[in-house]
Amino acid sequence: MDSLELIRGLSRPSPAKIVLLVIDGLGGLPHPRTGKTELETAKTPNLDKLAAAGICGMIDPISPGITPGSTPGHLALFGYDPLKFNIGRGVVEATGIDFDLKPGDIAARGNFCTVDKDGLITDRRAGRISTEKCAELCQLVNEMVIEGVKLSILPVREHRFVIVFRGKSLAPEVSDSDPQQVGVAPKAVSALNPKADLMAVVANKFVEQARAVLAKHHPANMVLLRGFSQRPNPPTMPEIYKLKPAAIAAYPMYRGLAKLVGMRVLNTGMTIAEEMTTLKENFSAYDFFFLHIKKTDSAGEDGDFERKVKLIEEADKSIPVLTGLKPEVIVVTGDHSTPATLKGHSWHPLPIVLCSEWCRRDRVGEFSESACISGGLGRFPATQIMPLAMAHALKLAKFGA
Amino acid sequence: MDSLELIRGLSRPSPAKIVLLVIDGLGGLPHPRTGKTELETAKTPNLDKLAAAGICGMIDPISPGITPGSTPGHLALFGYDPLKFNIGRGVVEATGIDFDLKPGDIAARGNFCTVDKDGLITDRRAGRISTEKCAELCQLVNEMVIEGVKLSILPVREHRFVIVFRGKSLAPEVSDSDPQQVGVAPKAVSALNPKADLMAVVANKFVEQARAVLAKHHPANMVLLRGFSQRPNPPTMPEIYKLKPAAIAAYPMYRGLAKLVGMRVLNTGMTIAEEMTTLKENFSAYDFFFLHIKKTDSAGEDGDFERKVKLIEEADKSIPVLTGLKPEVIVVTGDHSTPATLKGHSWHPLPIVLCSEWCRRDRVGEFSESACISGGLGRFPATQIMPLAMAHALKLAKFGA
Repeated sequence: MDSLELIRGLSRPSPAKIVLLVIDGLGGLPHPRTGKTELETAKTPNLDKLAAAGICGMIDPISPGITPGSTPGHLALFGYDPLKFNIGRGVVEATGIDFDLKPGDIAARGNFCTVDKDGLITDRRAGRISTEKCAELCQLVNEMVIEGVKLSILPVREHRFVIVFRGKSLAPEVSDSDPQQVGVAPKAVSALNPKADLMAVVANKFVEQARAVLAKHHPANMVLLRGFSQRPNPPTMPEIYKLKPAAIAAYPMYRGLAKLVGMRVLNTGMTIAEEMTTLKENFSAYDFFFLHIKKTDSAGEDGDFERKVKLIEEADKSIPVLTGLKPEVIVVTGDHSTPATLKGHSWHPLPIVLCSEWCRRDRVGEFSESACISGGLGRFPATQIMPLAMAHALKLAKFGA
Repeated sequence: MDSLELIRGLSRPSPAKIVLLVIDGLGGLPHPRTGKTELETAKTPNLDKLAAAGICGMIDPISPGITPGSTPGHLALFGYDPLKFNIGRGVVEATGIDFDLKPGDIAARGNFCTVDKDGLITDRRAGRISTEKCAELCQLVNEMVIEGVKLSILPVREHRFVIVFRGKSLAPEVSDSDPQQVGVAPKAVSALNPKADLMAVVANKFVEQARAVLAKHHPANMVLLRGFSQRPNPPTMPEIYKLKPAAIAAYPMYRGLAKLVGMRVLNTGMTIAEEMTTLKENFSAYDFFFLHIKKTDSAGEDGDFERKVKLIEEADKSIPVLTGLKPEVIVVTGDHSTPATLKGHSWHPLPIVLCSEWCRRDRVGEFSESACISGGLGRFPATQIMPLAMAHALKLAKFGA
C-alpha cells in the first residue's frame, strides 16, 4: 500500500480548512557578502510569528540532491510521488489554457523561434513576440490534418504555444525537436518506441509545413516542440483527501497542474495582494486552498538577490490576511529552492512552517533555512506535507484497530 | 523508477571533481570514563575546519538498527541499495585479487584452518599462517577437475584464499561449510535449491580431497568455505554517474568492490600518507576518487580505543593534502560505526561532512557524532550521499519540467 492509498482510506470530510501557501523557489543560498540567504535577509515579521506559533522543518522536494522542475515539485506538495506521477510538459501547458484533453490526445509544448538562413537557431524564443502575435501565427498553422491526425495549435503566452494531436495509433514516446540551445538546427522528432512511429512522422511533417508557412514571419520563422505527453489520470485530491480544493495561481502552468489533480481553479489577479483578495472572497466555499506566489522563483532565476528579498517581504506583508481568516491549518513553504547565486532551481531543502491548534510547537522563532533545520518536523520529503496538514486538521481517521 | 535509474537519467559529465574519503568504522561510542567517542577524543583540527566550512549530518549505512558488513556498507556509499545489490563474499575476494570472474563462475571465500584428530575445528585461521605458506598450500590443491568442474584455488593473504568453480550447471545457492565457531566440525555444503545440487557435490568432494592432501600440514590441515556467489552485473558508476572514477584503497576487498562497480583501482601504499600521495599523483586523470582508510576499523574491532583515536588523528593530518587539491566536492564519512567498546561493526549512525562552493553551510563547527546531529544535512541513508555529491558538483540536470 503506498502513501496515497493509505491516506485515501483514512481521510474524512470535515469543515476544517487548510491553506497551503507556496512561495515558489523559496529556499536560497547565502549571499557571499552577508552569509545570509534571501529569506534570512528579508524582514519577515509575520512569517516569523507563524514560525514561533507553529512547528517548523525542512523539506526535500524529491530526495536529497535532486533538483525538481515545477511540475514534480508541485506534485510532491500535493502528496503525489513525482517519480510515479510524472506529468508531461505538453499536458500541463494544454490544461493550463483550458484545452480539454481527451484520452489518447497527445500534447506538446511549442516555441516560436528564430532560425538563420542555414536553419540554425539564433533565438529559442523569437524575441519573445507578443501574445497577440503568437495567436495570429497559431492561426496560420492551426487545424491541419496530417496522416489522418488532427492538429490543434493554440497560443499560450508570448512565444509559447501548445500543439495537440488527435488520432488513432499515436503514442507519446518521441524525442523533442527542441535542442534547448542556440547555434544548432532543430532536431528531427524520433520514435523512442515502435508504437510511436506515426507520432514522429506526423510531428516532423508538421514542423516542415510550419517552416514553409512561417518563412516570411521573421523573427518567428520556425517552431520547436518538446514534452510530448498524454493526460495521465491520477486519483484526484477530492478522491484521496475528501477535500473541496481550490487553486489561486496566476500562471497558466500552475493552474493547469491544479486542474489535473482535481482542484477548482479560481479567477485571480497577478499580484500577491490580489491573490489574497481571491482567497478572502472564496474562503467559505472550499476547505483547501493552494495559493501560489510565482515571482520569487523568477527573481531567483534572474540571479536578482535583492528582488527576491523584496518579493519575500511582499509575501510576508500579505500573511495577516491569511491568518485573519483563521483556517484550521496553515502551511507555508515552497516547491524547491531557487538560489539567486545559482540562477536556477536547486536541490537544497527548504523551510516549512505548519500552524494549527494541534501542532506540537518547537523552539524555532524565525522562518529561515538555518532556523528551520532545528525544527520539530525535522527534514522530510515534500510528499508528507499533505498527510501532516490533513492530520492537523483532524481529517484523518486512526489507522488500524 | 528507483534512485539509481533517476540519477542515471539526470547525470551529466563535467570536469568538476568529487573526493569521497571513507574512514572505515569511523563512528564510535563514548569511552566510559570520558563520555567521549573516539572521534570526539581525537584532536581533529582539519576535519573541524571542514565541518565549519561545509554542511554536516548523520548517515545510516542501511537503515536504523542495521549493522552492515563491509560490502553493503560500501555499496550504500557508492549509491547502490545494499538490500538490492548484495554481492557475495566470494566474488568480492576474487575480484580483490584480480581474478577475472566469467559469467557462470562461482567464487567462495576459503580459510585454511586447524582441526584436531576428531575433526573438530580448533583454530578457524590456522594460526594465521604466512601469505607465502598460504600460496604453497594453494598449489597443492589447485587445478582440480571434479565432475567436469574446473577449480582454481588462489591465495589472498595469511590464511585466506579464494576458490573459483567453472563448469556447467552450477548455481551459488549452497550453504557454507564454515560454521564460524570452534569446537565443532566443518559442515557439509548443502544445496538450498535443486539447481545447486551439483555445486554442493563438487564443493564437498573438494573439501574431502583437501582434507586428505592437507593432513600432514598442521596447523593448516583443513579448509572452510563460505560466501558462494556469482559475479553480479550492477550498472557501473561510469554508466550511472558519467564519472571517471578511481579507487585508492590498500586492502584487496575494497579494491575488489571498487572494481565491481566500475572504478579504476590505483596502485597505492598501505599508509594514509601514501594513499594521499596516490591521490595527488592521479588527481588530474579522474573526476571521482574513493579514498579508503582501513585501519580505524581494525582498531575498533580490536577494542583498542586509543589506537582508533590515534588513527583518526593520523587521517586528520592528511586532510590538508586533500583540501589543497581543491576538488569541487569533498565528502568525509565512514561505511559504518565500529565502537571500540563493542569490538565490532555496529548500527549507530555516523557523521558526514560535505564541502562545496554550493553547500548551504550550517552552524556545526566540529566533526563529531554529537555535533553533526544538528547539521544541515540532517539524518539520512548513505545511499543518498552520491546524489548529494553529484548535485553539489553541478553534475545533475533538473528532474521534470
